[in-house]
Amino acid sequence: MIHTISKIRVRYAETDRMDVVYHSNYLIWFETARILMLDEIGIPYTGIEKRGLLLPVLTVSAAYKSPARFDDRLEVHLYMREKPRARMRFEYEVKRGDELLATGETTHGFMDLKGKGMRPPQDLMEKIESAWEQDMTAVV
Amino acid sequence: MIHTISKIRVRYAETDRMDVVYHSNYLIWFETARILMLDEIGIPYTGIEKRGLLLPVLTVSAAYKSPARFDDRLEVHLYMREKPRARMRFEYEVKRGDELLATGETTHGFMDLKGKGMRPPQDLMEKIESAWEQDMTAVV
Amino acid sequence: MIHTISKIRVRYAETDRMDVVYHSNYLIWFETARILMLDEIGIPYTGIEKRGLLLPVLTVSAAYKSPARFDDRLEVHLYMREKPRARMRFEYEVKRGDELLATGETTHGFMDLKGKGMRPPQDLMEKIESAWEQDMTAVV
Amino acid sequence: MIHTISKIRVRYAETDRMDVVYHSNYLIWFETARILMLDEIGIPYTGIEKRGLLLPVLTVSAAYKSPARFDDRLEVHLYMREKPRARMRFEYEVKRGDELLATGETTHGFMDLKGKGMRPPQDLMEKIESAWEQDMTAVV
Repeated sequence: MIHTISKIRVRYAETDRMDVVYHSNYLIWFETARILMLDEIGIPYTGIEKRGLLLPVLTVSAAYKSPARFDDRLEVHLYMREKPRARMRFEYEVKRGDELLATGETTHGFMDLKGKGMRPPQDLMEKIESAWEQDMTAVV
Repeated sequence: MIHTISKIRVRYAETDRMDVVYHSNYLIWFETARILMLDEIGIPYTGIEKRGLLLPVLTVSAAYKSPARFDDRLEVHLYMREKPRARMRFEYEVKRGDELLATGETTHGFMDLKGKGMRPPQDLMEKIESAWEQDMTAVV
Repeated sequence: MIHTISKIRVRYAETDRMDVVYHSNYLIWFETARILMLDEIGIPYTGIEKRGLLLPVLTVSAAYKSPARFDDRLEVHLYMREKPRARMRFEYEVKRGDELLATGETTHGFMDLKGKGMRPPQDLMEKIESAWEQDMTAVV
Repeated sequence: MIHTISKIRVRYAETDRMDVVYHSNYLIWFETARILMLDEIGIPYTGIEKRGLLLPVLTVSAAYKSPARFDDRLEVHLYMREKPRARMRFEYEVKRGDELLATGETTHGFMDLKGKGMRPPQDLMEKIESAWEQDMTAVV
């Protein structure tokens, strides 16, 4: 398993008139969590794109349990629970202290710049697998 | 069933450096589709909130099949396929002409301003049911 | 002069917890107004970018007089009051009915894909000048 | 003078198809800088709003010199160069290392929840003035 914890402080712009975080912003936080996780295992996302590879979101889901609010300090937990393959699947938990505010999941595939599905490069897969085998857990 | 079709023209601000629409923006389009549908059946969302009711998103999911791009003229199809209850469920299709770009689903519950779950008001439910029974389909 | 009027309906996602439109969204509306104006005079912005030209924002300013709110139907007035040159300057007014909510101004230059400043293409300039000379005014 | 420096790492969602940060996002960064500055001088913005006061943006301007890009680590410098009064004015510089990417300015007034202009509370003004008199400079 891979488990990383990133920190978010809620921006004013992320709230809506219900006085809570507008729901689509969680997806942006999930992405921030992925990018920090990739940094941590030595695969900066900018490096992936420099090779002409993209890692688009294929599916996303989220369940909102309790609202996040302006200026909240949150933790975004990212979990990779399945051994990585051509498609990768990440799960997320957004927490304020011990309170679970939301959960989510995304799946991703590798693509070239023309949108064609690609096998993930061997060296990237090895780094991800190595982190996965080591049960990496890190605050990123 | 309720089926409405709303039109979206992709904004520059909605794109990202992959030259496609950033994935979280589809959730904003889904919401626009819900609001136009509620208008169409005579329940403007501003009116719901004036009563002290909120209709928050409980869950959301989306599957991205083909990217939307800057300036695309899209149709967002909203479907309410289940008889409305305390929780409501909507499905979405985002299309560019005949091409299906993405699908999605959201569920919602009624809540008061303190975040307490509420029964939906009888008159609102009747309007939604009436549209549902009539198999309403409309370009909104 | 060129004067175009475009219509905006405020999205829920554009509000913040002050129950007003978050101020940076006006800049996105200004851009929508520019793109519709360019369409109207026969220079779709997608066509400009297909030639390898960009029309980036060099400066922007806005003054907020009265807040726009969720679901408001607004008019965004765009004015080109100066004869077009290498740099172009647009002014904006955001109105709800007769009420002026905000004013703004942007300046733009032509750039190639590497970020180098470019002279505007002759045919584009002619179309803009022609609209300017005719005192074009249009709902777009 | 007050001078604070906050750090931003550019999010994927903040880019557009020109492969640069979409221009309206700088305004969100300016706000983040203000909120961190207010924290630093002991006036958390959440505390201001709890008193029933708002500090809306009255005017904003920005000049874009060189684009920020995905994953850039930026510094947002905030300067309060004028002695604070009923209206406050902040200036901004966005830098990537030594390179100045953009400058900006915002002005603000105090308002009650009904939108009526208010005198700033004495204790808040004293804290701001005290930081200003001390020539506060801080990484926040």
